[in-house]
Amino acid sequence: MQTAVPSLREVEPLPQPYLLFLGDVAEPAYAKTAFGLRDWAGERCVGEFACAGTTIATGLPLMTPAQARAIGARAMVIGVANPGGRIPASWLPALLQALESGLDLIGGMHARLADIESLRHAAAALGRRLIDVREPPPGLPVASGARRSGMRLLTVGTDCALGKKYTALALARAFRARGVDADFRASGQTGILIAGGGMPMDAVVADFAAGAAELLSPDADPAHWDVIEGQGSLSHPAYAGVSLSLLHGSQPDVIVVCHEHGREHMLGYPHYPLPSIEETIDLALRLGSRTNPAIRCAGVSLNTSRLDDDAARRAIEQAGARLGMPVADPMRAGDAFARLVDACLA
Amino acid sequence: MQTAVPSLREVEPLPQPYLLFLGDVAEPAYAKTAFGLRDWAGERCVGEFACAGTTIATGLPLMTPAQARAIGARAMVIGVANPGGRIPASWLPALLQALESGLDLIGGMHARLADIESLRHAAAALGRRLIDVREPPPGLPVASGARRSGMRLLTVGTDCALGKKYTALALARAFRARGVDADFRASGQTGILIAGGGMPMDAVVADFAAGAAELLSPDADPAHWDVIEGQGSLSHPAYAGVSLSLLHGSQPDVIVVCHEHGREHMLGYPHYPLPSIEETIDLALRLGSRTNPAIRCAGVSLNTSRLDDDAARRAIEQAGARLGMPVADPMRAGDAFARLVDACLA
Repeated sequence: MQTAVPSLREVEPLPQPYLLFLGDVAEPAYAKTAFGLRDWAGERCVGEFACAGTTIATGLPLMTPAQARAIGARAMVIGVANPGGRIPASWLPALLQALESGLDLIGGMHARLADIESLRHAAAALGRRLIDVREPPPGLPVASGARRSGMRLLTVGTDCALGKKYTALALARAFRARGVDADFRASGQTGILIAGGGMPMDAVVADFAAGAAELLSPDADPAHWDVIEGQGSLSHPAYAGVSLSLLHGSQPDVIVVCHEHGREHMLGYPHYPLPSIEETIDLALRLGSRTNPAIRCAGVSLNTSRLDDDAARRAIEQAGARLGMPVADPMRAGDAFARLVDACLA
Repeated sequence: MQTAVPSLREVEPLPQPYLLFLGDVAEPAYAKTAFGLRDWAGERCVGEFACAGTTIATGLPLMTPAQARAIGARAMVIGVANPGGRIPASWLPALLQALESGLDLIGGMHARLADIESLRHAAAALGRRLIDVREPPPGLPVASGARRSGMRLLTVGTDCALGKKYTALALARAFRARGVDADFRASGQTGILIAGGGMPMDAVVADFAAGAAELLSPDADPAHWDVIEGQGSLSHPAYAGVSLSLLHGSQPDVIVVCHEHGREHMLGYPHYPLPSIEETIDLALRLGSRTNPAIRCAGVSLNTSRLDDDAARRAIEQAGARLGMPVADPMRAGDAFARLVDACLA
């Protein structure tokens, strides 16, 4: 039975601009989503709002939901996450205030907004939406494997949580700065908030995961680049299947391998050594060539955030000499990153 | 937020023995599930039931649901599938008759039993269950990657639909015939019906797929073998992610690669050539060694169902000589299959 296949063009984009909600957390590490939105989608964030007593701040103007609505905001985004991914009762007055002020609510936490009865009732009564960016669109297709027009780049990791999203964002921004028509394509919840749309790859049913990745970067103009956020690692004992589905469905022409300098074991899996950069390149090219025989690796994005400037420069130079390809930390602008961008577009 | 992790021991097994329902289909190819149950779980099938005018038969005694219940049947299994995976209205009287006779209903079609209002109401009123074997258990964990005790074999395919389930069933039966403690572990719907339980790998959310595979073959006695039904192919443009998750989570000690003689393109993907057996072995060992460094390939299961006996024997001998390892068609008993079993247990 054929079901109608959605295209991402038909999937409604997230309502923007945003008001960022900081909850009542005191630990900046829990506000990564808000900081990411400020850094990468700042022109679509009108301000911030928080519970009384919150000590963190994004630097955006502090305002009420009503003030945000008056200057054009269309949704309030939960920009923080506590370790459990819960939505505490202490946030509810602020969330209800946003709905009453005419804003939709957008969340990407473990707990779903629509599972909270008072929010559900208020949203229904006010005609507002509760949007969960962890939920994939319905009716996803099985992958066709057919080649699509346009150029594609995928960031591929040696592990989780080491810079695949930031690398893709930085490359898409650099491509555009050179006059190249490029889109960042988000495959995880923070990326989806930044892009205003995308595909939550980790939440898709396994049989449709490669099909979901095909939808994420549709046919495009031959000169257009989709810069796709990678997920997981092909060597990850839990998430490699997600990474392979994304690789096959993305059909990248170019990969950039992302690694954190000094990380030796998989995050949360101390009995699993990290694969080498060389092994990761080789495996990704071998597996990726199944759906795009022309796949190539343009270089390496090296996360040197734990090093000072001198040590970072040395680590980048040494890795480049060893690997014989461009290596750069996109968070440290400079010639090395420019050479990585050159190699991607070559 | 930690949620309780189920174990398959806690997941209730399917109610057995079965009455097989043949619907009103006239094409034997659509009754594959019923034939598979007759061949591999015949001792747990009391008989068959069908709509008037059905021309196919399993050879099991024809009886009504009431007669089946009287001799111990606990569920009626929908043993047929039409191309659309629909449950036609013409089947409903028979399905309601089974519920009224005290049988649960088990289905694995695209359409869900519980989505049909008259069945849902009847089951609720009668205290009967509507069981869909495509639905994974709730609360699946992320894979831990931790090694488990006991021995594991996984069948690995060059493509879909060429004998991975039958090979696993035949090997598990042969292991037991040699006095080896062995269980068949099902990863797809027909296999789950045969085994009375299992994990519908294709329906699991991608992030939990390797974790679901870990649950499927839990810690066991060091001499015990789990013989695990493979899914898809590591070279499949749509399903490779499922195959990799199952490979990583299964942590097989032994793989047997399954191939159909003469198949040259992926089923339904004419622009994708089949990977060679050699490439499939090499890729599965490379990827599988991530979670079990001791993984090895014991041999090849060659589906020769389109060949006559002489041509099949020649094809098996030629493949064995080329690959330098045991090759057999499990559907053709004989010395070749005995050597494949030897190699698995070596």
